[in-house]
Amino acid sequence: MSAFGNHTSEKPRIIRSSDQMRNFVRNQQADGNRVGVVPTMGALHAGHLSLVQASTDQCDCTVVTIFINPTQFGPGEDFQKYPRTLESDLGALSHYGVSALFVPEVEVMYPPGHATSIDVGQVSRLCEGVRRTTHFQGVATVVMKLFQIIPANCAFFGQKDYQQTLVIRRMVEDLNVPVQIVVCPIVRESDGLALSSRNVYLSADQRRQALSLSRALRHGRDLFAGGELDAKKIVSTMRRVIDEASGDIMPDYLILADPLTLEESAEANQETIALVAAQVGATRLIDNHVLSHPWLEPLV
Amino acid sequence: MSAFGNHTSEKPRIIRSSDQMRNFVRNQQADGNRVGVVPTMGALHAGHLSLVQASTDQCDCTVVTIFINPTQFGPGEDFQKYPRTLESDLGALSHYGVSALFVPEVEVMYPPGHATSIDVGQVSRLCEGVRRTTHFQGVATVVMKLFQIIPANCAFFGQKDYQQTLVIRRMVEDLNVPVQIVVCPIVRESDGLALSSRNVYLSADQRRQALSLSRALRHGRDLFAGGELDAKKIVSTMRRVIDEASGDIMPDYLILADPLTLEESAEANQETIALVAAQVGATRLIDNHVLSHPWLEPLV
Repeated sequence: MSAFGNHTSEKPRIIRSSDQMRNFVRNQQADGNRVGVVPTMGALHAGHLSLVQASTDQCDCTVVTIFINPTQFGPGEDFQKYPRTLESDLGALSHYGVSALFVPEVEVMYPPGHATSIDVGQVSRLCEGVRRTTHFQGVATVVMKLFQIIPANCAFFGQKDYQQTLVIRRMVEDLNVPVQIVVCPIVRESDGLALSSRNVYLSADQRRQALSLSRALRHGRDLFAGGELDAKKIVSTMRRVIDEASGDIMPDYLILADPLTLEESAEANQETIALVAAQVGATRLIDNHVLSHPWLEPLV
Repeated sequence: MSAFGNHTSEKPRIIRSSDQMRNFVRNQQADGNRVGVVPTMGALHAGHLSLVQASTDQCDCTVVTIFINPTQFGPGEDFQKYPRTLESDLGALSHYGVSALFVPEVEVMYPPGHATSIDVGQVSRLCEGVRRTTHFQGVATVVMKLFQIIPANCAFFGQKDYQQTLVIRRMVEDLNVPVQIVVCPIVRESDGLALSSRNVYLSADQRRQALSLSRALRHGRDLFAGGELDAKKIVSTMRRVIDEASGDIMPDYLILADPLTLEESAEANQETIALVAAQVGATRLIDNHVLSHPWLEPLV
């Protein structure tokens, strides 16, 4: 240990076995430490790091998981090409006082014979669930597995994957999982683009087009702030913003919805959330904004 | 506390709230106690009590749950008439040193909005799963909920519901639930009838007919002990035993199967299990026996 040893610049301990991981967490808790977990698929960006920061702020011990979960990718999706950047992820985490990094192999998570899946019902069928029919079963199942391996007090997820946070909240409540779910705000580039590990797929031109998603959300927010409540009018303005940016982006969905059920709203209120998804070239992008919330200054 | 206070003749503490239940278990474990749980639907008989005995033998603290789980009953099944006998259940448990009895209301387990279910795949589709298509989803989901509310070290189930034990083992392994599953032998009446809370539905005549199920299993066992390995021959003998008892009982299934997958076996071996299900009047009965196991002297 260096005389200049600084806990917060040490690399986290890497753990690859489930039993070791669970014992680590239990020992921390037996010592009275509150444990936070940040489940990720790696390719860490400032959005993930804001979750890590929230966990280290709120908990005594933070575990980050990196697992590119095959069961949440559909046929033809980007499981194979999803960015794998463990070395730089480790470097990024070294400044955050992360205690452990759980990096299981696929065979550890899904040994031969694995057959169980979790379905959370209606909230997983809408929006992303329409085209990605098995996506949220994959998400719910792997997150439940992680919660059993890492019985943390708190788990941190990003608002960027808003429907995912609903799916996980539903599952945690329905299955009585004793973990507190914390959802952290979207982190955006200075021009408004929501951070995503998939942004690296975008060409310069696609990236410019992709900006129209966040621009549309901000326009929707501004209309609502100006007193407009008619969802049809707000949505058609938002759609025009996207159309004007490029004829190439066809939103998969662009809706104002109830923030708990994701059912489309006819009239906006303080809780209404705007959600958008679009294919930009081969890249699927999603973004969202609660209409009544301020458009935050970008954090990066 | 009486000078003659005897722990094992005290009634267990009744707990109806999930949070209280979880705290109770955690406090026990914090004191270094190993906790066992025996999930039941009440209407306790000597089969259940053998599970309780196994738990009190192997654990420092035993929790029994009584919850008639609506989601594991199909339409037209006996949810409404299922025997509810809390007072006598409490009396029966008072002799076993049970620490707590978890008796949640349906609204505690399934509050409005509950939407999550767990599917364990192929092993839940065969045998009982063929006709009772949502039964094992109901079982898996409620058992997972109970394991989150009661994070026990050990959980005790009866071999009588053999497929259920496979479903639960599959779920526990696949979802990484840190609980040890213990399966205890079938308890039979002196004439061989496997104990079941549903036996109370049987008329005297039906009860006599129902005996043919265990008699068939014993015949199958005897044939195997005598060297017969041909599954077809063993099954046809077993079927004849049932046919001779009564033309009224038509087995729903009567098979020799692999004990892990429940796939039908063409040839019997040391692991092969014989499984039978039949409707006796309005009452569905199931029974099973591992062919290589001795036919135990009845325990009651």
